[in-house]
Amino acid sequence: MKRIGKLHVLTDTVLQSRFSHTELAKQAISGGADTIQFRQKNGSTKELIEIATEIKRICSEMGAAFIVNDRIDVAIASEADGIHLGQEDFPLPLARKLLGKNRIIGGSAGTPEEIEICLRGGVDYIGFGPVYATGSKDDAGPATGIDFLKRIAQTTAVPVIAIGGIDQTNAARVMSAGAHGIAVISCVCCRDNPANAARELNDIINASS
Amino acid sequence: MKRIGKLHVLTDTVLQSRFSHTELAKQAISGGADTIQFRQKNGSTKELIEIATEIKRICSEMGAAFIVNDRIDVAIASEADGIHLGQEDFPLPLARKLLGKNRIIGGSAGTPEEIEICLRGGVDYIGFGPVYATGSKDDAGPATGIDFLKRIAQTTAVPVIAIGGIDQTNAARVMSAGAHGIAVISCVCCRDNPANAARELNDIINASS
Repeated sequence: MKRIGKLHVLTDTVLQSRFSHTELAKQAISGGADTIQFRQKNGSTKELIEIATEIKRICSEMGAAFIVNDRIDVAIASEADGIHLGQEDFPLPLARKLLGKNRIIGGSAGTPEEIEICLRGGVDYIGFGPVYATGSKDDAGPATGIDFLKRIAQTTAVPVIAIGGIDQTNAARVMSAGAHGIAVISCVCCRDNPANAARELNDIINASS
Repeated sequence: MKRIGKLHVLTDTVLQSRFSHTELAKQAISGGADTIQFRQKNGSTKELIEIATEIKRICSEMGAAFIVNDRIDVAIASEADGIHLGQEDFPLPLARKLLGKNRIIGGSAGTPEEIEICLRGGVDYIGFGPVYATGSKDDAGPATGIDFLKRIAQTTAVPVIAIGGIDQTNAARVMSAGAHGIAVISCVCCRDNPANAARELNDIINASS
């Protein structure tokens, strides 16, 4: 059965360089992350597959889901548990055809129109945002704010994972708004102790349910 | 039946900007190119698929094969006739599994070891080179020269397409060395009249067989 995680950590080696993708994955999962997402725009396909395969191994061992961002070729080759596709990525219906029913497909949305596209494309969850302003993604749209998130969470037929500027200071508010979970980058990856940072978020998520 | 073309033109919009990928494809095919290869490292996956789909349409209409470089996701989504994979790209055996027997898979090689990897991976043809020094590919290895090409062409079980620094001045020599065909970039794309440039190459290829 597909279970959509509540604490998604996108491992990032651009905003910080102290930790590798695999080190971040280990720390994040040990702190309570149940989903690791791998997003990297540079490097050869072979290199991306090698990193993804290593993260997948760690996720399997530690019991977390492994999701690849954008690159369905890398997801297939690394036997990822799923893929996360933005509006400018691979087409959702074809992704479902290639991955089958049992793998997770998430879609990014920041507007009701984009949510509609995701739902028609058969996503298992929606990454909605940016809820707050973020410096972690160059091409992120305008911040949606909490009220918009609340409306979306109430009316969307699949789990809504909030993303964008979420950290330990506002995660409780985001969960109270009805998000199924949160996806974070810098507030885990850029901290001195990513495991502790994930643990703080995990505690907030657990307290909110 | 899979037929491996003799004049492969890689449409390029980095070395020149006067022509789009589709304009280059049209001109090259009208001049006699039987295979168009799409190689682009920048842009969103959606954008790459859109361009590839448009080139594929032109190739189908004009009777040329359409091959995508590196990105098997883009090849699948655009229903390309095949994929060309470098040593740092997607793994060949998995590519065959995804594309099936009827689509073309080419592999890049510059050494006997890399040829062996390609053959074990089940390629339909090998892109061998760079035969001459080239400015069209940053990470190209050292030039192999004509004698090495001759030896490889004689001993390799699949068609050998020569690539790297090949143009109207040396194509006859390359074909005489036993190459099944040639793959070119700048000597078509960077010419004022790509159709004429392709026609010159096509005449050389036809004269050599």
